[in-house]
Amino acid sequence: MESHEKSARLLYDALATGDRKALDAILDPAFTGEATEGLPFGLGGTHEGAEAMIRDFWWAIGRHYRARAEPAEFLALADGGLVVLGRYVGIARDGGRELDAAFAHVLTFTDDGRIASLRQYTDSARWAGATRGTPAGQRALRVVRYDVTAGLATIELDRPEAGGAIDPTMVEDLDEATFRAAHDPEVRAVLIRGTGRTLSVGGDLAFFAGEADTIPERLRWIIDRYHVTLDRLVTLEAPVVCAVHGALAGGGLGLAHVSDIVVAADDSRFAVGYGAIGLASDGANTWYLPRLVGMRRAQEMFLLNRVLTAAEALDAGLVTEVVPADELAARAQELATTLAAGPTRAFGHMKRLLLASQDNDLAGQLAEETRRITATGATADAREGITAFVERRRPDFRGR
Amino acid sequence: MESHEKSARLLYDALATGDRKALDAILDPAFTGEATEGLPFGLGGTHEGAEAMIRDFWWAIGRHYRARAEPAEFLALADGGLVVLGRYVGIARDGGRELDAAFAHVLTFTDDGRIASLRQYTDSARWAGATRGTPAGQRALRVVRYDVTAGLATIELDRPEAGGAIDPTMVEDLDEATFRAAHDPEVRAVLIRGTGRTLSVGGDLAFFAGEADTIPERLRWIIDRYHVTLDRLVTLEAPVVCAVHGALAGGGLGLAHVSDIVVAADDSRFAVGYGAIGLASDGANTWYLPRLVGMRRAQEMFLLNRVLTAAEALDAGLVTEVVPADELAARAQELATTLAAGPTRAFGHMKRLLLASQDNDLAGQLAEETRRITATGATADAREGITAFVERRRPDFRGR
Amino acid sequence: MESHEKSARLLYDALATGDRKALDAILDPAFTGEATEGLPFGLGGTHEGAEAMIRDFWWAIGRHYRARAEPAEFLALADGGLVVLGRYVGIARDGGRELDAAFAHVLTFTDDGRIASLRQYTDSARWAGATRGTPAGQRALRVVRYDVTAGLATIELDRPEAGGAIDPTMVEDLDEATFRAAHDPEVRAVLIRGTGRTLSVGGDLAFFAGEADTIPERLRWIIDRYHVTLDRLVTLEAPVVCAVHGALAGGGLGLAHVSDIVVAADDSRFAVGYGAIGLASDGANTWYLPRLVGMRRAQEMFLLNRVLTAAEALDAGLVTEVVPADELAARAQELATTLAAGPTRAFGHMKRLLLASQDNDLAGQLAEETRRITATGATADAREGITAFVERRRPDFRGR
Repeated sequence: MESHEKSARLLYDALATGDRKALDAILDPAFTGEATEGLPFGLGGTHEGAEAMIRDFWWAIGRHYRARAEPAEFLALADGGLVVLGRYVGIARDGGRELDAAFAHVLTFTDDGRIASLRQYTDSARWAGATRGTPAGQRALRVVRYDVTAGLATIELDRPEAGGAIDPTMVEDLDEATFRAAHDPEVRAVLIRGTGRTLSVGGDLAFFAGEADTIPERLRWIIDRYHVTLDRLVTLEAPVVCAVHGALAGGGLGLAHVSDIVVAADDSRFAVGYGAIGLASDGANTWYLPRLVGMRRAQEMFLLNRVLTAAEALDAGLVTEVVPADELAARAQELATTLAAGPTRAFGHMKRLLLASQDNDLAGQLAEETRRITATGATADAREGITAFVERRRPDFRGR
Repeated sequence: MESHEKSARLLYDALATGDRKALDAILDPAFTGEATEGLPFGLGGTHEGAEAMIRDFWWAIGRHYRARAEPAEFLALADGGLVVLGRYVGIARDGGRELDAAFAHVLTFTDDGRIASLRQYTDSARWAGATRGTPAGQRALRVVRYDVTAGLATIELDRPEAGGAIDPTMVEDLDEATFRAAHDPEVRAVLIRGTGRTLSVGGDLAFFAGEADTIPERLRWIIDRYHVTLDRLVTLEAPVVCAVHGALAGGGLGLAHVSDIVVAADDSRFAVGYGAIGLASDGANTWYLPRLVGMRRAQEMFLLNRVLTAAEALDAGLVTEVVPADELAARAQELATTLAAGPTRAFGHMKRLLLASQDNDLAGQLAEETRRITATGATADAREGITAFVERRRPDFRGR
Repeated sequence: MESHEKSARLLYDALATGDRKALDAILDPAFTGEATEGLPFGLGGTHEGAEAMIRDFWWAIGRHYRARAEPAEFLALADGGLVVLGRYVGIARDGGRELDAAFAHVLTFTDDGRIASLRQYTDSARWAGATRGTPAGQRALRVVRYDVTAGLATIELDRPEAGGAIDPTMVEDLDEATFRAAHDPEVRAVLIRGTGRTLSVGGDLAFFAGEADTIPERLRWIIDRYHVTLDRLVTLEAPVVCAVHGALAGGGLGLAHVSDIVVAADDSRFAVGYGAIGLASDGANTWYLPRLVGMRRAQEMFLLNRVLTAAEALDAGLVTEVVPADELAARAQELATTLAAGPTRAFGHMKRLLLASQDNDLAGQLAEETRRITATGATADAREGITAFVERRRPDFRGR
């Protein structure tokens, strides 16, 4: 029954990558799933049909947790079934606390090799525990300052003694601050900036260092949380301005990548730095750099550790504009304030369209443009904007 | 039976986006579809099997209409079935006339929640009506001039008093002119240009303005038709040259985007302008701008309404070349004439490859290159080109 | 039973493009495949289930051959089945010898039109024959020099009298040299360069020329092999440096495209040249050029045969750096030597990430970054790199 183990491995791979197509191919349409009763968010109980299991269980987990099912052992049963032992590892999405719970999955198969059923045994208290504690949005900030004034949320990295390095405290605070911005309907623009001599040197190497066995775990712990922050910023309706000063390196570059407008001080510098320490990449550097600075410059930054000056970063397309260092704060504030007075709904649709553009083909993008421009056409801001244009006066946008 | 409504909604979503994978997942393989008998183009009648329904009904509709099925009400039946009421909205592809027809769909479901059958009731006379009137290719032109000389089709926007703004008349004329170019086998190159002080300021705001409720409808009416024109230009075998003078803004930029060679006068300017009026985007701006000028410049144009000069547009990659304003007409004519004397089949394959490149992975593109270069290798122009090269003389291409 | 022929054609299309989703839709899950017994690599025999047929037969063929099943005739059987006659055409992957074997496929169908079974009759001796002869890695080189010194493999095109043109001998030698580099665990960097006045003018037109009927065949023969070489270089873990001098044109550009670092002499020139001979494109030019130099420049190169100088190539993003011609050899050697002393595992993951970035959406890339940086975190080089950083000394990487 080696092929059953293969099918099971395909299942865990498909779940890890969210590959809906593969799930459809692996699961019997009449699939039955029995989840541990005590799971929070109504996840527990029986799910009839592959469709229901995917939608109401696996995808539902994804809405509440950022978690992986990591299989460790595959034990064949006499009747052709399979027991898979492993652990769920990840974090609760809004709480940011760790999930680490053992599981046993009992799988059965159809004659043609598809998965017919899955019974799940896991420690539901661990799942619930990851969601407890101070709720997101109310947690204290330590190394990040957060402020909202006149619709503009300012997120300030304030760990000057460490060059804004991203350690567990920093990543938790960024999670909290971006959560607040994302859930405050008054916020119409976000400004990211830092204190000290530099915005962020990237991951805190002192935290990553340690015994060889713990480096992967530490990387995963911090990156899992940091990527939630980046994902939240990129999907924010409000435009994001990033003010870069000093060095911006490694994963720290991700804060600029996911921003919509990046202003850099003329003495700032940009580098990935991974090659020097034998690591690959995080912070979405490998997604954004080829798109922003081109493949040749990205390869040079990764393989030869090329450092870009502010002027080179502007020329290459990494930043939107460069200003004298002593004008950076004022210029970033001015841009963010301008955006906070803009047509927020339309800005949100523009951001979605520019992001979707990376994945859509031309026909798909034309359809999405039609849908989204029609949606903005129904807003109060569009009525005001078009009227003001015809009346030759400045529009007064309210963000709705 | 709430899950049946969910399945039905997934069906309409999948049809709207052309998501074949989703359709395969939602429909029972033994699905039966019964379409209204009187539909034109042989669309009516019974379709046995999900495969046949997709291929011979839904995809076939897409070849003749650019239409959406917009469900409005979902009514559960006692036997578990569902009646969906709504409207088909769109236009006939080549005729450009409106389709707006009510429908009732009666859906049944399998035990595992897939859709087992659909009976369609709709007003087939509306469908047929959208295809009547003067056939495309024979309609009169009002604000666009069209001419074919020596294989070169010239499409001239001629609405100088309104800066080439795109209103209903303009969009109908562009549809007609591009239809003619696309269906004339003698056409080996296309030149797009304009009269007056500017090529096109984009959508005609006077047309869009109005009661808040009508803005979305007006946007959709004009954009549905305009996107057909852009799609037709981008899939044309013959190369397209666009001559830009004055301002090119908003949706008008789409005419340059879909062209293969863009020559701009040195005093021309480029802007999207949507932010100023609270709208999102149309004209494929969100697809092309990140690809042409890069993400940072595109974000700046959308969020800060950055205007590009001709020199900046050239530097950023928005246009192919910039010439003094008084040399624009001659240079564009020269380029288009040169292209009209080229190996048209090979040009068509190059255009397809460059467009497909945006969606293919590397392996897929290598396979498509092999297929297409082999196809061009069998043309008379390739034989002439290779022979001429070996004989050290200029090739005489005939476009076949 | 015309629809059965359609299903069969969909099958061959899906196999040609590797479209797994389409195969899932076309094949009955309980599909049975019977392959000719004598096929090499254990391909022969019965495969039960669509999943097994795809995985153990069709995908397995793809690992050993680069081949297409080209159907020529579809003969309907009285019982609703179908006989398809055609030829398998391609090459054995590592041997590089031709496969050309007739086939008959007997297909049966389910009531809902899916393919229920396929019996394959083909000349298995032809399949085995394509894999015989001197094994890859041990074949003699004629016009390419290959050397490995201190972890650096040098691949030198040495056909100076023909400007490094790609003819059958050149393409076989490139296949052999890149095969050696890909299978030598000691290789930590690759340098591609050429002798004579120019790196490569592209395909050898004297080879392509001939009767009109043979041009497509000759193109396919050489391109099939050349694309295997490009695919091998792009998936190599070791970084690849390309030193460009003189002209680099047509398919020859592919050698630079798939490299990670490209150094060009200041008097070098770049052109695609296909338009002049009425052909489309090969060598991955249509995949890389829009990504490297942008769509406008790529269109100009294809449609107007624009030639780029070294300075223009650098500015456009086609090459990494430009050096005086007499310093090219030394600079390329220096870069390749530096890379050969780097963290090879991390470099391999960076290369994969940068390539995958072209196809992944942002969420998928973030997940892949997490997985790959975690993998590199477990390497000896990462431990050394992080330790050296904390200790403020240069790391000593061993490539593992």
